[in-house]
Amino acid sequence: MPDPSVETRQESPSREELARRYTEVRRFSGHICGPLSPEDCVIQSMPDVSPTRWHLAHVTWFFETFVLTPFDGGYRPCHPDYVYLFNSYYNAVGPQFPRPQRGLVSRPGLAEVHAYRRYVDEAMAKFLEAAPEETLAGAAPILEIGLQHEQQHQELILTDIKHVLSINPLCPAYRGRAPQPPAKAAPLRWASFGEGVRRIGHAGGGFAFDNESPRHRQFLEPYELASRPVTNGEFLDFMRDGGYAQPAHWLSLGWAKAQEEGWRAPLYWVEREGVWGQFTLAGLQPVDPAEPVCHVSYFEADACARWAGARLPTEGEWEAASEGLPLEGNFADGGRCHPAPAPQGAKCLAQMFGDVWEWTSSSYAPYPGYRAAEGALGEYNGKFMCNQYVLRGGSCATSRNHVRRTYRNFFPPEARWQFMGFRIAR
Amino acid sequence: MPDPSVETRQESPSREELARRYTEVRRFSGHICGPLSPEDCVIQSMPDVSPTRWHLAHVTWFFETFVLTPFDGGYRPCHPDYVYLFNSYYNAVGPQFPRPQRGLVSRPGLAEVHAYRRYVDEAMAKFLEAAPEETLAGAAPILEIGLQHEQQHQELILTDIKHVLSINPLCPAYRGRAPQPPAKAAPLRWASFGEGVRRIGHAGGGFAFDNESPRHRQFLEPYELASRPVTNGEFLDFMRDGGYAQPAHWLSLGWAKAQEEGWRAPLYWVEREGVWGQFTLAGLQPVDPAEPVCHVSYFEADACARWAGARLPTEGEWEAASEGLPLEGNFADGGRCHPAPAPQGAKCLAQMFGDVWEWTSSSYAPYPGYRAAEGALGEYNGKFMCNQYVLRGGSCATSRNHVRRTYRNFFPPEARWQFMGFRIAR
Amino acid sequence: MPDPSVETRQESPSREELARRYTEVRRFSGHICGPLSPEDCVIQSMPDVSPTRWHLAHVTWFFETFVLTPFDGGYRPCHPDYVYLFNSYYNAVGPQFPRPQRGLVSRPGLAEVHAYRRYVDEAMAKFLEAAPEETLAGAAPILEIGLQHEQQHQELILTDIKHVLSINPLCPAYRGRAPQPPAKAAPLRWASFGEGVRRIGHAGGGFAFDNESPRHRQFLEPYELASRPVTNGEFLDFMRDGGYAQPAHWLSLGWAKAQEEGWRAPLYWVEREGVWGQFTLAGLQPVDPAEPVCHVSYFEADACARWAGARLPTEGEWEAASEGLPLEGNFADGGRCHPAPAPQGAKCLAQMFGDVWEWTSSSYAPYPGYRAAEGALGEYNGKFMCNQYVLRGGSCATSRNHVRRTYRNFFPPEARWQFMGFRIAR
Amino acid sequence: MPDPSVETRQESPSREELARRYTEVRRFSGHICGPLSPEDCVIQSMPDVSPTRWHLAHVTWFFETFVLTPFDGGYRPCHPDYVYLFNSYYNAVGPQFPRPQRGLVSRPGLAEVHAYRRYVDEAMAKFLEAAPEETLAGAAPILEIGLQHEQQHQELILTDIKHVLSINPLCPAYRGRAPQPPAKAAPLRWASFGEGVRRIGHAGGGFAFDNESPRHRQFLEPYELASRPVTNGEFLDFMRDGGYAQPAHWLSLGWAKAQEEGWRAPLYWVEREGVWGQFTLAGLQPVDPAEPVCHVSYFEADACARWAGARLPTEGEWEAASEGLPLEGNFADGGRCHPAPAPQGAKCLAQMFGDVWEWTSSSYAPYPGYRAAEGALGEYNGKFMCNQYVLRGGSCATSRNHVRRTYRNFFPPEARWQFMGFRIAR
Repeated sequence: MPDPSVETRQESPSREELARRYTEVRRFSGHICGPLSPEDCVIQSMPDVSPTRWHLAHVTWFFETFVLTPFDGGYRPCHPDYVYLFNSYYNAVGPQFPRPQRGLVSRPGLAEVHAYRRYVDEAMAKFLEAAPEETLAGAAPILEIGLQHEQQHQELILTDIKHVLSINPLCPAYRGRAPQPPAKAAPLRWASFGEGVRRIGHAGGGFAFDNESPRHRQFLEPYELASRPVTNGEFLDFMRDGGYAQPAHWLSLGWAKAQEEGWRAPLYWVEREGVWGQFTLAGLQPVDPAEPVCHVSYFEADACARWAGARLPTEGEWEAASEGLPLEGNFADGGRCHPAPAPQGAKCLAQMFGDVWEWTSSSYAPYPGYRAAEGALGEYNGKFMCNQYVLRGGSCATSRNHVRRTYRNFFPPEARWQFMGFRIAR
Repeated sequence: MPDPSVETRQESPSREELARRYTEVRRFSGHICGPLSPEDCVIQSMPDVSPTRWHLAHVTWFFETFVLTPFDGGYRPCHPDYVYLFNSYYNAVGPQFPRPQRGLVSRPGLAEVHAYRRYVDEAMAKFLEAAPEETLAGAAPILEIGLQHEQQHQELILTDIKHVLSINPLCPAYRGRAPQPPAKAAPLRWASFGEGVRRIGHAGGGFAFDNESPRHRQFLEPYELASRPVTNGEFLDFMRDGGYAQPAHWLSLGWAKAQEEGWRAPLYWVEREGVWGQFTLAGLQPVDPAEPVCHVSYFEADACARWAGARLPTEGEWEAASEGLPLEGNFADGGRCHPAPAPQGAKCLAQMFGDVWEWTSSSYAPYPGYRAAEGALGEYNGKFMCNQYVLRGGSCATSRNHVRRTYRNFFPPEARWQFMGFRIAR
Repeated sequence: MPDPSVETRQESPSREELARRYTEVRRFSGHICGPLSPEDCVIQSMPDVSPTRWHLAHVTWFFETFVLTPFDGGYRPCHPDYVYLFNSYYNAVGPQFPRPQRGLVSRPGLAEVHAYRRYVDEAMAKFLEAAPEETLAGAAPILEIGLQHEQQHQELILTDIKHVLSINPLCPAYRGRAPQPPAKAAPLRWASFGEGVRRIGHAGGGFAFDNESPRHRQFLEPYELASRPVTNGEFLDFMRDGGYAQPAHWLSLGWAKAQEEGWRAPLYWVEREGVWGQFTLAGLQPVDPAEPVCHVSYFEADACARWAGARLPTEGEWEAASEGLPLEGNFADGGRCHPAPAPQGAKCLAQMFGDVWEWTSSSYAPYPGYRAAEGALGEYNGKFMCNQYVLRGGSCATSRNHVRRTYRNFFPPEARWQFMGFRIAR
Repeated sequence: MPDPSVETRQESPSREELARRYTEVRRFSGHICGPLSPEDCVIQSMPDVSPTRWHLAHVTWFFETFVLTPFDGGYRPCHPDYVYLFNSYYNAVGPQFPRPQRGLVSRPGLAEVHAYRRYVDEAMAKFLEAAPEETLAGAAPILEIGLQHEQQHQELILTDIKHVLSINPLCPAYRGRAPQPPAKAAPLRWASFGEGVRRIGHAGGGFAFDNESPRHRQFLEPYELASRPVTNGEFLDFMRDGGYAQPAHWLSLGWAKAQEEGWRAPLYWVEREGVWGQFTLAGLQPVDPAEPVCHVSYFEADACARWAGARLPTEGEWEAASEGLPLEGNFADGGRCHPAPAPQGAKCLAQMFGDVWEWTSSSYAPYPGYRAAEGALGEYNGKFMCNQYVLRGGSCATSRNHVRRTYRNFFPPEARWQFMGFRIAR
């Protein structure tokens, strides 16, 4: 979350621009839920997953709680219990319905949640039309956070429903995908970077979350970065070389986790008669060796890198290397919702954006001088800075206009259900 | 499950009678699901609970697996994976989708499950119409088990959905209920029974499950049985006298469980500003002191009985006492789905049937000479005869034509989510 | 625990007789601890096991709490904290140090516990010498319970230390045992018993625990009982026939437990290169096919009986069959501490006493008319009457003068670490 | 563990010097175990704790495995099973007896473990006397690691036995301590440090572990460091201000842990009648407000720092600030084994060494260019670099000649049983 005192120094977007952005982002939520039945939208297949219905309501609650209630004097909340039911983790707002029980609540149903969305959308539309300029200027940065927040949950809707459907022995597809001609993986090359003090973090200009600030200096020793993420084919080499059976490659915690959970391949991989398939949003598909490997934990990424005689990059190295690269890639907007092979003959650093979030070796920590915002929105990022690792670059489930070079995503090292891959360094 | 070789000695019901019974029982399933949304039918609020959709499909699977597949040569199963997805615990039929994950499967959805029901109903209708007499005579006892089985699951649908809705902080009602004038509890009297050898178990004539046989002799010492179940008012006396705080009243396992779970009242009871309410299928309601106490575990029943200087009856005592009583009471057919106060001035033993299942002190064990049936249906009852206690008499969620004097229901001593109460003896 | 009001009607033993009994029982505790190091006496290898040091102190606490404190006005407790530290489960005496943490307390050490024993022994000696006759008459029944109680813990010391040593990869022996010539198992024969009302329970005359009373009537249908317990050889047949892999033989709870724990043989059995050995109090030894099988749960006993086309006897059947048999067998007094093969050419019912406790199919429940004693000693037996099964006849770790025909031992159906075997019925 | 290829470039210590060091370190292990009974040395009070006997054997196993076996051709291991029983976590050496079960093994007893130590000490003495120079030069760096390793376990023996004794309701003392006059805490001052590129890590010269290398550059923004650690008095202010009840101060994981474990004060603190005492190695003592607070987790340190409007320093900040400070403090050598108040009128940065390990905000990660050693000793440090935080400066349980400015200790953020405190920065 940006420090509002900083962000509001920028020129505020116009009333129309805000309304246009709002409509566009909100519509996309409806778009991605199109293929889902009411039953699909109930299920919480593990504590990390939330029901689709909950996501749709929670992002709406965000606008109600942080925009309409404080800035629109005439607003009346849609339902007195939603403030409790759809609060995720904001202690400053009040108590929260227990997270692991989100999948145990059948009402309000999907139709009622859509009604809740319409109720808030109408109130927002009126507010954006009629609010005094000054009020609007105060609300605009929060509204922007609300939109970014909804985009984050759009990605979660996709990753969560993938997990939900994967539990079903019928292997149902979220949405079909046309079969594709086999590709060949682009060869892995190394890009070199020299030592020196580099500036890291958000430079100002446009939206950024508070955890990307303040911009500060880091000294980097010389390093090299791989030209593209590790592929399924390369990861299969690791597997065939006994990668999951040899503790010497692994962090101690990772080895313990892998034994406890019986890991022997990335999440969603299934071996049938010696051939590896993977569950995707288009159902069960063969593993394509040219695609970036996906749904691996930090532990697996780290072990495979060590096996390859390399390591994961730090987030500073990743960010410094990304300087000047165009923000292009395989994003949610394209609708593939699955990583794609790196294009042949691509530029030196390919696929830095989109396809898969890339694990870095950096523990998620505050930048020097970091300050969380005052009030409830100060809980957005800072309190999670422990035992998590930073991922960079967005994925095939991220919206193109959501991600940035300085964007810091973060998950615990055992997490696998996001579209997570990795790129090696040395 | 009755030994088919025994049951078929009885005269088989006619083709029309079977079809009529089948239609009636199947329709009642649809009737009780009327108030439920697709979302309601997904949720498994604890491992003991199954989603409504699962119940509806599983009872259908039963007819498919045990009637159509073996007896109807032309039958083709509705879906190749349902045999796995909707098998409850029949190892002889094949592996089963893990029970605690039933609530993690969103497809087939409610509409598809209803289509599955129609598919099987049509096949059954044709079968009952066209099957040769001999085939029909072989299938009839199994079909009868299937209907009894569906009636058991109808009760489970009600008890499970009550648990599901109770988790929801909005306290939604399954179905409204008209408010009722306050009643006064009928006074508790004692009925006396002399010592002697009594015949216990199913005497033949009509359907019975295998666990009610063989009929055998038990020696009973003299005993007395209370004229009606313990009421909410009496249970409140126990509570106010420190019943939940005094280990001397409790079985050791019960005390440990009560501490671990923080029990201080029956399940579904909620204290708000010093007044006890209870969650019911009609939403949150005040506790009526005249109603039988319900949703108590064996441990609570046993502790309250001991506190009262009494004890629970054995199942033999209960069955012997019930001889000659008419099979009347507050059953699911009436639609109240909640225990009712004992009628004033009633006969000596009131409410033996309906209202609440009554815990007995008898561990669920085979009768002398008990033999489970051959094959998969032999798994119906026998393998559960361990660490469970017998309950007698049916409840307000049981169908009137399902229960019998000799009927043995059974649950682990910590179970509370059924309509369970108790009657004391001495 | 006997109802003192009943027991004291008997003629009280003399002062000298009490002192002699006391000394004899207490000495035997020291005798069986002879081979143990201070380190051995600390360990609690699972929650059910208690450290030897704790057993030695707890039985002493019993005399201090129930004899010396109430009956000897001049007695001063040895240490103010022992009343808390060495109370097992008597809520009426006060709070208890948590059972699963008994193995986390290193002080008082073994030497101090022996000093505690001497302190109480000296006080008891003085009390028995000097107490007025009337006081002594009041104390005598409690003292007798204390001695019986210490004998129960002597058996537990042996079974617990066997478990403790079995965890050690060095497989240390508690005490060596001379190798024995291979025996041949006596052939299994059936003893028949007719139907009728039988008297069950303690008839008076000599000590008995309260759970053996009141003597009452049971109607028994005709039955047959095997002439000796099931042997290791017979159990190996069950294993080789896939006994542990076939759910049809098992109770549902038993099957779940066996899968969860990975059972594929009795506790303490170890397969090395295709040959079965077993850990014994004499270290690792080959499995002798002629010995009674031991360290099996109720679930395994029940499954093996069902596989053999038989069943476990009820405790009533066992007790009725034992009438008139001499109380002889392989007991702790003999020092073998391991079951022995049934003697060839033995009488019809061999090994009813000693060798292995025999699981019955009877859930541990109060006899009709049972009343627990008033006060703390009322917690001795009654509160455990739930989810446990009765075992009969004593074992190779029981003292000969401790057991009786009517003696009811009880354990949960999953327990295996006692010397537990079984005899089949039909 | 240092890279041997680097370390051996230094001049090797002489034969006599090695023998003297060896004897001195090994003797200190015996010294700190002096007050312990055989029973004390068995107990593992939680999975993180190891029995004293295990520590004494494991450090001996280290010399046997890494020095005697590879370098002394004539050496025969003391016992064939010790290589398994006393291996901690070296997969390259072979399988390990499960860590959480170390407290379940009573044999070898304390006397046998001492015999094992003597056996290895004698073999080491002979080896140091008679080994060829070249062999000795190869073995010397490993031997040095072995000694450093034993010093680490000496600290663990003290922290583990403190935990063991703390479980005992008798609150026994490890060793008495003379009462001390009340002190006044030195006032907290701030030391300032300017921005710039600083060199971090071991500079060569003397022993260091591999995780302190390579020396590298870090850019530090300007910062201030508190002149002494936070005291009990200051921590009490945090507590009295609702520190444990206000989620806004806490990391999300920390808050969850605190709720789950019911934390409301540092480990070992006990409130009796409104007064705080603490369990120490000298038994239960009053909390002295002038002493550094100790036995707090990273979560509590972080929350208290945030409450104070400050933060924890990074390890780079700590190390840069420590440059030039004398290595003096309250160490294990002094025998107090408890933190002491900061001296009045002390130099600007007091208590940087000794008293309490100081939590830093730095996740434990490899320095740029870090390489673990080849072979089993490569498992010493590197594989633990995940979800742990770095602590600096040693404690009252660390040997003075064991710690360094560049020394990196590390524990998970929830750990509390080491002598852990913190110093704030801003």
